[in-house]
Amino acid sequence: MHLNDFIKLLNKHKLDGYFLPRGNLFIGQEDILPEENLLSELTGFSGSAGNLLILTHGKSVLFVDGRYELQASREVDLSQVGIICTTTQHITPLEWMKNHLPPKFKLGFDPWLISLRNFQKWEQQLPQCRISSLPLQDLGINPQAPCSDIFAHAGEYCGISRDEKISSVLTFLQEQNLDAYLFTAADSSSWLLNLRAHSLPYTPLLRGYTLVDKDGRVSLFAYRHHLTDNPALAGLNCYDISELPRCLSTYKRQTLGVDFASCPEQIAALADKYKITLRHAADTAAEQKCIKNPVELQGINAAHQRDAAAMITFLHWLELNSATIPLTELDIAAKIRELRAEQDLFYSESFDTIVASGAHGAIIHYHPTAQSNAPLEKNSLLLIDSGAQYQDGTTDITRTLAIGTPTPEMINNYTLVLKGHIDLFDTIFPRGTGGRLLDSVCRRPLWQQGLDYNHGTGHGVGCFLDVHEGPIGIAKSYSLYPLSQGMITSIEPGYYLTDRYGIRIENLAEIIPAEHEGFLAFKSLTLVPYDRRLINKSLLSAAELDWLNRYHKRVWQTISPLLDNGARTWLEQACAPL
Amino acid sequence: MHLNDFIKLLNKHKLDGYFLPRGNLFIGQEDILPEENLLSELTGFSGSAGNLLILTHGKSVLFVDGRYELQASREVDLSQVGIICTTTQHITPLEWMKNHLPPKFKLGFDPWLISLRNFQKWEQQLPQCRISSLPLQDLGINPQAPCSDIFAHAGEYCGISRDEKISSVLTFLQEQNLDAYLFTAADSSSWLLNLRAHSLPYTPLLRGYTLVDKDGRVSLFAYRHHLTDNPALAGLNCYDISELPRCLSTYKRQTLGVDFASCPEQIAALADKYKITLRHAADTAAEQKCIKNPVELQGINAAHQRDAAAMITFLHWLELNSATIPLTELDIAAKIRELRAEQDLFYSESFDTIVASGAHGAIIHYHPTAQSNAPLEKNSLLLIDSGAQYQDGTTDITRTLAIGTPTPEMINNYTLVLKGHIDLFDTIFPRGTGGRLLDSVCRRPLWQQGLDYNHGTGHGVGCFLDVHEGPIGIAKSYSLYPLSQGMITSIEPGYYLTDRYGIRIENLAEIIPAEHEGFLAFKSLTLVPYDRRLINKSLLSAAELDWLNRYHKRVWQTISPLLDNGARTWLEQACAPL
Repeated sequence: MHLNDFIKLLNKHKLDGYFLPRGNLFIGQEDILPEENLLSELTGFSGSAGNLLILTHGKSVLFVDGRYELQASREVDLSQVGIICTTTQHITPLEWMKNHLPPKFKLGFDPWLISLRNFQKWEQQLPQCRISSLPLQDLGINPQAPCSDIFAHAGEYCGISRDEKISSVLTFLQEQNLDAYLFTAADSSSWLLNLRAHSLPYTPLLRGYTLVDKDGRVSLFAYRHHLTDNPALAGLNCYDISELPRCLSTYKRQTLGVDFASCPEQIAALADKYKITLRHAADTAAEQKCIKNPVELQGINAAHQRDAAAMITFLHWLELNSATIPLTELDIAAKIRELRAEQDLFYSESFDTIVASGAHGAIIHYHPTAQSNAPLEKNSLLLIDSGAQYQDGTTDITRTLAIGTPTPEMINNYTLVLKGHIDLFDTIFPRGTGGRLLDSVCRRPLWQQGLDYNHGTGHGVGCFLDVHEGPIGIAKSYSLYPLSQGMITSIEPGYYLTDRYGIRIENLAEIIPAEHEGFLAFKSLTLVPYDRRLINKSLLSAAELDWLNRYHKRVWQTISPLLDNGARTWLEQACAPL
Repeated sequence: MHLNDFIKLLNKHKLDGYFLPRGNLFIGQEDILPEENLLSELTGFSGSAGNLLILTHGKSVLFVDGRYELQASREVDLSQVGIICTTTQHITPLEWMKNHLPPKFKLGFDPWLISLRNFQKWEQQLPQCRISSLPLQDLGINPQAPCSDIFAHAGEYCGISRDEKISSVLTFLQEQNLDAYLFTAADSSSWLLNLRAHSLPYTPLLRGYTLVDKDGRVSLFAYRHHLTDNPALAGLNCYDISELPRCLSTYKRQTLGVDFASCPEQIAALADKYKITLRHAADTAAEQKCIKNPVELQGINAAHQRDAAAMITFLHWLELNSATIPLTELDIAAKIRELRAEQDLFYSESFDTIVASGAHGAIIHYHPTAQSNAPLEKNSLLLIDSGAQYQDGTTDITRTLAIGTPTPEMINNYTLVLKGHIDLFDTIFPRGTGGRLLDSVCRRPLWQQGLDYNHGTGHGVGCFLDVHEGPIGIAKSYSLYPLSQGMITSIEPGYYLTDRYGIRIENLAEIIPAEHEGFLAFKSLTLVPYDRRLINKSLLSAAELDWLNRYHKRVWQTISPLLDNGARTWLEQACAPL
């Protein structure tokens, strides 16, 4: 659909504007299929996060974060759509609407795509607007992705049985005096039921809602075509998502718990209709899921070791071939995929691999396509951000590599990014510290030179689930959720020089107890050397150098047994003390 | 009044509990007089912040922050009052009440003492309670402090005339489409009107509300006995605070702006009664006040130089005398006061001086009294936190000093605190960064050894006003308010070992532009050397040592001309390169 056609629909419905997030009814999931991505269809914007305010008069507005500022300005028709970078301008879409929408503005939205909490904020902060619920479905827009089988996530990888997980929900219902709880976040359902599905290219997410009631009845609501006769679904009451209203209606005058932060406003409308008391209670599955259990941690560590073997084999291959063969970004992405696919328990990549040569690296979330694909630029930097889904764990790693001879400026800036990466890895912090409080430790070496990066420092990571998993994170603008033992976060500072190059260094970290009582520390899950050609040793403190040498020693000791002779020899040099 | 008598009053009013903050109707002012401090009268708790939940059945609950956990447990009768440390337990009083108050709990409060914003949160989060407004005045409790003259803050110190400030409020009213704005924070009124008063021992605060309406009418509401015939009040309409309802009633059907965060709930009740539309708009005086203007900054810098001369003269005196004369904590506090009082433009101390010897130092906000006064403990640490109000600026400095021979452990812990203090001072950060994001930089050297401190890292400071001034701060748990050029904050990490000693190092910092575009830096206003006997140089990084030596050089160059010969010689040694 073209933006103009959508505007015609709005005019027909006498609306002045419509707020469209990138997403679907499983709010909080950045993973949507191209055919579901109306925001991209209307604007051309291909980034993984964004909100579009479509206006019938004047330019529409696309809200993106700092990762996508440059990319959005290149992808959208700027004569039709203005771009607001929420991080650069320190403004949320809601704040923008509060300041810019005129009195009596008629604003439409899809109640499946806005959380209850956000809608409450809208009602408070947009008193000048007349806000109307108008599901896209009622506009004749109902993209439903095809989807194949649901399958069980095996006990040897997930560690806790479904019965145990449900039993803890039942205890929670009792404690909170709730008659039932509706899990609306798809990854919560996936984790709770130990189910996965071949629904998305990069995330084995079962997209569904799970309703657990105090009598122990567990109902799954998903797209009907998922719910074929399937032993993995034994013991569950399975319904098409369209049957949710009918099922909810049986809870009349009862109290239903939902997480207002992830529950669509539509559920509140249904609760209202059926006289159900809706009460906010934090999604316990989300909270338990982010603390990995010992079985998961064992798998995740093992997955990272296999992933490191693939990446190191790739780095060796790249060094052998990059000087002689004219390689493109897509060649590299294909090679990485090939080497990962050879590893045990490989399922898929965990996101669309970023291979960004030279100036492409400055586009923070650039992905090579047939159109953009470029040969490796000589005497520049190559940024590779990639990862895989293994049945025992999810990986995500970024390495920035020298191609040819890097300039001293590139080396110094790489070293500043590395300093921040190491400083945060080497930080001990009190149990319960919010990720936001650690962000500046990673940025400080860059800040001291007047530099910064316009994205978060770290995100949580699922286990054979979303590569970006809430509720934890390390960033300027979000996540005060307390960090605790068993959580996993990325640590990924960067530096981007538009039209020149990009630098990012990312490892995943397991949060472990520090030797001091009450304190926590980071242990790297990722075990791949940093490019020593890009390190200016004189800029490292003694503590940083020591961390780096200990890390490389650990990489060598852990991964060298998994490599063939050529890669092993390469690794020995890559891990030699600096 | 005894707590039991208050509980009798509650029983008479059929309440199950009553929420009593430390404070008065000028919400946000920690400076209250002893005769106004009902919380202290009921419990014995003398700290500068706290909230008491009085319960008719079972123990009452006193909520304090980490600074006062130890002190409160020593001051209150623990058989009658339990203590909850909000920072240690990561819980707000409201969250505690939400979790602990039973259904149908009848909770009373004084609508003059609770802000509109807090009351809104109560209504949302305490659905189980029946909340009743019951002003203390209706209980026959109406402490009104005596107060002497109001006086003008001279133009040579405040820099911007009252007319200019009011004119900017009028522009704001127009922009926001408001008929009037009511400033309810006393320091906002003081700043806006360029008025001060001899009302409190440590803060020359005019305690009043200011109403500015779109016709340019400016009304001051204060206690009647302040409003004597006074040339400083020319041009203002002055009313006793009891006349506020009557005056508000003349704004029927008009729109009144207030800051929900600092406006008492009582104003909402009045607005309701008089059919006034109340709208939240941030207190522009608070926002402008925290960015000091060039005239204020000049005065503040000058005040800090005079204050440094007094402190250095004191440090020299202490070294001369501490070994030979048996000095007590109170002797020291008196000497500091005497030396400050000799300085030009001295008005008062800016808070009750903390002189804490040995174990007293571990009580974060200990003040020596006739009962607690102790002689200086040998071979231990002496913590002195003090400051002054000068007409051109407000100071606040903490130094920890060796008395006799400190242990290596004391030296190492002092050095860790100093490292954090220096690291934050030496941090460059993007314009607009919230203070909270910088907190970890200051704590990290302690964290690395499994240590921490249970208070904020920094607070804003007024200009001849509150020594603790919002909205900025640097702390784990508050202030995301963006830092900008011209603001003033303390930087004051510490370390406290119960029953042994306390360490705190505090300078005030002016926020200045960094050499890098878009970045800011800290410049120390405080110019007093650190105790070199407590510094283990081998624990300092090269950057830290360099900062320290540059600082001491600047202290020497700036302050030595202001000293007599003896102190000057002492300073030369104290500032010699390490």
